[in-house]
Amino acid sequence: MLEELKQRVYEANMLLPQYGLVTFTWGNVSEIDRKSGIFAIKPSGVAYDKLKPEDMVLVDLNGNKVEGKYNPSSDTSTHVKLYKAFAHIGGIVHTHSPWATSWAQAGRGIPCYGTTHADYFYGEIPCARNLTKEELKDYEVNTGVLIADLFKDKDYEAIPGVLCKNHGPFTWGKDGHEAVHNAVVVEEVAKMAAHCEMINPNVKPAPQELLDRHYFRKHGANSYYGQK
Amino acid sequence: MLEELKQRVYEANMLLPQYGLVTFTWGNVSEIDRKSGIFAIKPSGVAYDKLKPEDMVLVDLNGNKVEGKYNPSSDTSTHVKLYKAFAHIGGIVHTHSPWATSWAQAGRGIPCYGTTHADYFYGEIPCARNLTKEELKDYEVNTGVLIADLFKDKDYEAIPGVLCKNHGPFTWGKDGHEAVHNAVVVEEVAKMAAHCEMINPNVKPAPQELLDRHYFRKHGANSYYGQK
Amino acid sequence: MLEELKQRVYEANMLLPQYGLVTFTWGNVSEIDRKSGIFAIKPSGVAYDKLKPEDMVLVDLNGNKVEGKYNPSSDTSTHVKLYKAFAHIGGIVHTHSPWATSWAQAGRGIPCYGTTHADYFYGEIPCARNLTKEELKDYEVNTGVLIADLFKDKDYEAIPGVLCKNHGPFTWGKDGHEAVHNAVVVEEVAKMAAHCEMINPNVKPAPQELLDRHYFRKHGANSYYGQK
Amino acid sequence: MLEELKQRVYEANMLLPQYGLVTFTWGNVSEIDRKSGIFAIKPSGVAYDKLKPEDMVLVDLNGNKVEGKYNPSSDTSTHVKLYKAFAHIGGIVHTHSPWATSWAQAGRGIPCYGTTHADYFYGEIPCARNLTKEELKDYEVNTGVLIADLFKDKDYEAIPGVLCKNHGPFTWGKDGHEAVHNAVVVEEVAKMAAHCEMINPNVKPAPQELLDRHYFRKHGANSYYGQK
Repeated sequence: MLEELKQRVYEANMLLPQYGLVTFTWGNVSEIDRKSGIFAIKPSGVAYDKLKPEDMVLVDLNGNKVEGKYNPSSDTSTHVKLYKAFAHIGGIVHTHSPWATSWAQAGRGIPCYGTTHADYFYGEIPCARNLTKEELKDYEVNTGVLIADLFKDKDYEAIPGVLCKNHGPFTWGKDGHEAVHNAVVVEEVAKMAAHCEMINPNVKPAPQELLDRHYFRKHGANSYYGQK
Repeated sequence: MLEELKQRVYEANMLLPQYGLVTFTWGNVSEIDRKSGIFAIKPSGVAYDKLKPEDMVLVDLNGNKVEGKYNPSSDTSTHVKLYKAFAHIGGIVHTHSPWATSWAQAGRGIPCYGTTHADYFYGEIPCARNLTKEELKDYEVNTGVLIADLFKDKDYEAIPGVLCKNHGPFTWGKDGHEAVHNAVVVEEVAKMAAHCEMINPNVKPAPQELLDRHYFRKHGANSYYGQK
Repeated sequence: MLEELKQRVYEANMLLPQYGLVTFTWGNVSEIDRKSGIFAIKPSGVAYDKLKPEDMVLVDLNGNKVEGKYNPSSDTSTHVKLYKAFAHIGGIVHTHSPWATSWAQAGRGIPCYGTTHADYFYGEIPCARNLTKEELKDYEVNTGVLIADLFKDKDYEAIPGVLCKNHGPFTWGKDGHEAVHNAVVVEEVAKMAAHCEMINPNVKPAPQELLDRHYFRKHGANSYYGQK
Repeated sequence: MLEELKQRVYEANMLLPQYGLVTFTWGNVSEIDRKSGIFAIKPSGVAYDKLKPEDMVLVDLNGNKVEGKYNPSSDTSTHVKLYKAFAHIGGIVHTHSPWATSWAQAGRGIPCYGTTHADYFYGEIPCARNLTKEELKDYEVNTGVLIADLFKDKDYEAIPGVLCKNHGPFTWGKDGHEAVHNAVVVEEVAKMAAHCEMINPNVKPAPQELLDRHYFRKHGANSYYGQK
């Protein structure tokens, strides 16, 4: 069932090594079919060069496997929570991409230092706190809960990603491919923000009016980037 | 019309991903036919691996599209302003190449620390200030105006590039290929200048006499680099 | 003799350049056949692009060559000591991979800043002290002795690698391939730990409970990562 | 004439882009035939992907072109001086490889922080001072003179390379290929030394006895690395 979905999720997963975002199996992509409430996700610990479309695992929003010979990604419960919390997203990516993970390990959100960042993320990419010992007992579920809580006063469509402290980034989008696209952006702006602070330790975030200009050049009713 | 120009501009655009200067569609090259006052430029938001020579958009110096099925790059108005201000240039490149963009985000010009830089840029590669809120209302036009203003007391042929604060680099040259060449140089010297300051935080720019020697080894009547 | 072992060790060695862990011949992999007490190891100073399975050298646990037209790796005596000291390992890797070597040159162990590290190494990857002048007289043997000593109060299966001061990393595993896998992990976490400290000079190691959670997600009776 | 020499020098030149040491034409290799006192060198400013063996230019030790349709590298006079000053070398390489050039721009020699360095360079890779205004009048000749002077109290065979301040590295060896090999080593140790100081700003050079051990493991009568 949902063969097209599995094919798309397979292709989106294969973009992760292509863009240099994963070493070994350190990443996963899912995409949801909102009608059926079922999403396809990478199987846990299967090497990318062995992966096939039919290996994608189908899971429902209770976190139950619906179809698939493999176990789904160990991060599946986090995906479930995010699909429930963020009604308009269709795809989720988790990686340990090196620059984004370095910021996550440093426990800092990525400041918006320029238009590359502002074209996709409307302000800082936040860093979620560590889970408490108690919360760690249900680790993957509570990772999702924590991210959802963090975005209660943020717009998850304008800031389509987050860093989890001492862990790494999650990104999302309207489908798996857009979520991968945003994962590439996070890695690229994470790298440039680190170098930017090295070049000027006193650097300040870009002015709000420039961020507005670039964000709304690409998003919303008056956008004019690209082809319509 | 101008099929050769479109072919050359296509090829120059394809050099950007080849030299690692662009992620996704974050860059564009144009080249002008000075006789007709028409330039060819990359269409906005079209992926490099889908790009074809016939997709190049022809634009005149009033910024009007002359030919092409796509919208031209969203940065087209900046190109127009630069072609008008800098009479001897034939090509322009804009990228978000990571090291040059890191300097732009840091709000610093790139000091001339050595002969690699001096072979192409006669002194610091300057960083243009942010546009004001008022100027941002006509963003791409005023980006061009700002760059032109900044070069009123500089030689745009001896310093064929600039950083725009919180944004990224623009470079130019006698044609699109030379502008790409200079974009590669900016990225390379941006990287080395950052590492140089990391290795020696008290480093000073290279002595003027060495810069003179290298610049004039490659440029002007007494140059002797390469084949004549 | 032991043709399959030589084939496996050849393949494991060829992974080193593939993963970007070696320049020229700066690395070697061995794997032991515990029944016979014989291990296969890369020949000394032979270029990777010339290497063939039959070039692998067979050595016994007294350090004597058993078979092979070439001299074994100059680090062979270190491998012998480690196979003797660590009864449950089956493979060993030594490289000069650049980030791990930078930490070794800096004389610092790699702190555990996140889950990428914790998934494979249960805490800091330690850095062994320099050998004394006296110990240097029997350099490769004493490198092995020093590492074995350092792990007297550590669990070599939970921390499958070490840095040797002013030199570089050694890693191990149940076979040559797992040792290579761990060498890739060391390089990756070495890179991210350095960038993490650059981004936040006051960063602290990840909380113990998060490390426990991740380590035991992948290891031991209650692990649930991957496919069973 | 000297067809084999030209072929070898061509091949050695082609290794520079393969090892990532050059952008555009920023590098050159030469090799000398000591019997005839003639060396082959890359032509000036010819792109690597256009280069052919027959393009190599033959030059004598007075700096006169003996054969070739192109002008020799603009650095030819420096090569002449080095061949005259260092009687036992057979090949020379100059590049603007990014990490070595960053140290040169920083005006610092590369300290010996570990065995990767010590395996090839017996101690610090020195950085030659800037030429004076007077000396710059005969730039390429005096670059060679300056390097030769700097090595009057050093062993050019034990330290087969140098950085020129605000410029970049020169390396040498028994032939062009060994000089390229040493150019790769300089770039690699330059990178690791910079990262090493980032990881530990108070790092000290490796102990002399370890350097001795590694250097003499590979060089001299008692060496035992590789195959004899």
